[in-house]
Amino acid sequence: MAFNSPPVLTAWASIVGPREGDGPWGHDFDWIMEDYLFGEQTWEKAESKMLRETVKHAISKRNFEPADVELLVAGDLLNQLVSSNFAARELSIPFLGLYGACSTMAESLIVSSMLMDGGFFAKTVAAACSHHYTAERQFRFPTEQGVQKAPSSQWTATAAGAVLLESIGVGPRITAATIGKVVDMGQKDASDMGSAMAPAAADTIKTHFQDLNLPTDYYDLVVTGDLGKVGMALAQQLFVRDGLTPQPNYSDCGVLLFDESQEVFSGGSGCGCSACVLCGPLLKKMLAGDFKRLLFVATGALMSPTSSFQGESIPGIAHAVAIEN
Amino acid sequence: MAFNSPPVLTAWASIVGPREGDGPWGHDFDWIMEDYLFGEQTWEKAESKMLRETVKHAISKRNFEPADVELLVAGDLLNQLVSSNFAARELSIPFLGLYGACSTMAESLIVSSMLMDGGFFAKTVAAACSHHYTAERQFRFPTEQGVQKAPSSQWTATAAGAVLLESIGVGPRITAATIGKVVDMGQKDASDMGSAMAPAAADTIKTHFQDLNLPTDYYDLVVTGDLGKVGMALAQQLFVRDGLTPQPNYSDCGVLLFDESQEVFSGGSGCGCSACVLCGPLLKKMLAGDFKRLLFVATGALMSPTSSFQGESIPGIAHAVAIEN
Repeated sequence: MAFNSPPVLTAWASIVGPREGDGPWGHDFDWIMEDYLFGEQTWEKAESKMLRETVKHAISKRNFEPADVELLVAGDLLNQLVSSNFAARELSIPFLGLYGACSTMAESLIVSSMLMDGGFFAKTVAAACSHHYTAERQFRFPTEQGVQKAPSSQWTATAAGAVLLESIGVGPRITAATIGKVVDMGQKDASDMGSAMAPAAADTIKTHFQDLNLPTDYYDLVVTGDLGKVGMALAQQLFVRDGLTPQPNYSDCGVLLFDESQEVFSGGSGCGCSACVLCGPLLKKMLAGDFKRLLFVATGALMSPTSSFQGESIPGIAHAVAIEN
Repeated sequence: MAFNSPPVLTAWASIVGPREGDGPWGHDFDWIMEDYLFGEQTWEKAESKMLRETVKHAISKRNFEPADVELLVAGDLLNQLVSSNFAARELSIPFLGLYGACSTMAESLIVSSMLMDGGFFAKTVAAACSHHYTAERQFRFPTEQGVQKAPSSQWTATAAGAVLLESIGVGPRITAATIGKVVDMGQKDASDMGSAMAPAAADTIKTHFQDLNLPTDYYDLVVTGDLGKVGMALAQQLFVRDGLTPQPNYSDCGVLLFDESQEVFSGGSGCGCSACVLCGPLLKKMLAGDFKRLLFVATGALMSPTSSFQGESIPGIAHAVAIEN
């Protein structure tokens, strides 16, 4: 989709955990939490608070109140989307909950943009979040158990990002988007989600360039959601297979978020990973003029623990959002 | 939202379980399953197959293939939305996954309608499903345990519904919609979700009539998602409190789906409940001329087992869709 009236990113905010704050972009986030509880009794409540406070902080930059926002489109990784649901309860904004696993930040930006370009809303917020310790105990093992990780595994980010979109205003614009299909190459290893998602990322990126008839070096940066080092290397091979020449200038939020020294294995992951990299360093660099055209391709692994126990492979999805300044 | 180019419901389909088929509307559904496994090895795989086959059946009524459909918007109750994700994998249609608990059928219809009215798509499918036994073991107790139910509890329907929307065609039209806010009155009893959702339903219905400046008897029928007998009685009290006079002609999909004799306690529930009542008897009656104006208000209880264990109350949401023939 190419937008006739591209929605404007007039404000954004990010909140991250201590480990994410220690990474290379600590100074680019709005708020670094001192611990993982954020003043709450449980990690789950902390995660919901992160999302709520990120939304409030983003809209406060334009001196708006939650009541000024016409629609909240958000999602997270927790069962039944409780972080988003409880944040939406506190904010009291008309709410659409989405689940796209780690692709959620792109999905929420796309849905918001289409609804604004369609003329339904003038002010919306798109947001996503994840929390390392809630995801760990929901998807993997009790955190107390301290299970060893595979080198291909990724570290779920404790992070939230929110973007305020306005139909009129000053800032980067969402000019185009591509909604992905579910792609599944039969990968079953839940410790290697990057490989499961890379084919979906490559498929969506190829479709985006084809649909819009763009040269493959149109964007100053193409950034995938959270493929990590393993998935990013595979995506680069798939670009070659798909004949994307010249190769786009390419990176991955999962690789960017942490330092080599931080022992996060293949890299960061979780809805919050791409959300905070976008709402932290990427949009900041865009405003500073470091690049003008960004293709943000958040990627999601759409399995559940139950589907994996039942022998299913891991379906992947990727949605692409073109942001231009 | 009132639509300038109301999308047309050109085809729809429903698949239900044996118990739902034994209810008062058995002859109105497209397909009644002989058992709860539907030829699969697990209930979860059966649920995903139900959604997939319902979508395929709906589009086959217009002689379309999945590749003819430009967008699938769907959701279900399972963790990480696996029924929808795996159905989208098989269908290979660009996909937006939504989570709105039992409000999903209305949420998917609204998102699809806005994107079509906005000019982005000409053919979309909105769908939702649930399965009694997958929901039971995910949300409540191991099914083998045969735990006793409270009289206010509801029976999760084994059912799926799908609507094919086209921008041009013959059939009922989606003329208007209202996206709900999350409403939480502090109810904590997970055995009484009808009471938790009724305030959200009343809030959305009141907002819908106010926003569009409609007389409260404008619709031939206002039908809520799945409040059941307990929630429906509460909603009727809230209509009085909110001054909705004359009272709309009102019923509830959770009350309608089963017979008094079927021992479903307060009534049916689950995403599939309102989806199959809409895509079965309601749209059939509309085509037969029994009524012309329907306000379909699917309702969702947005808690998770984890949020309930952590002492949280149950947030509710309701979205309203006006369907007119």
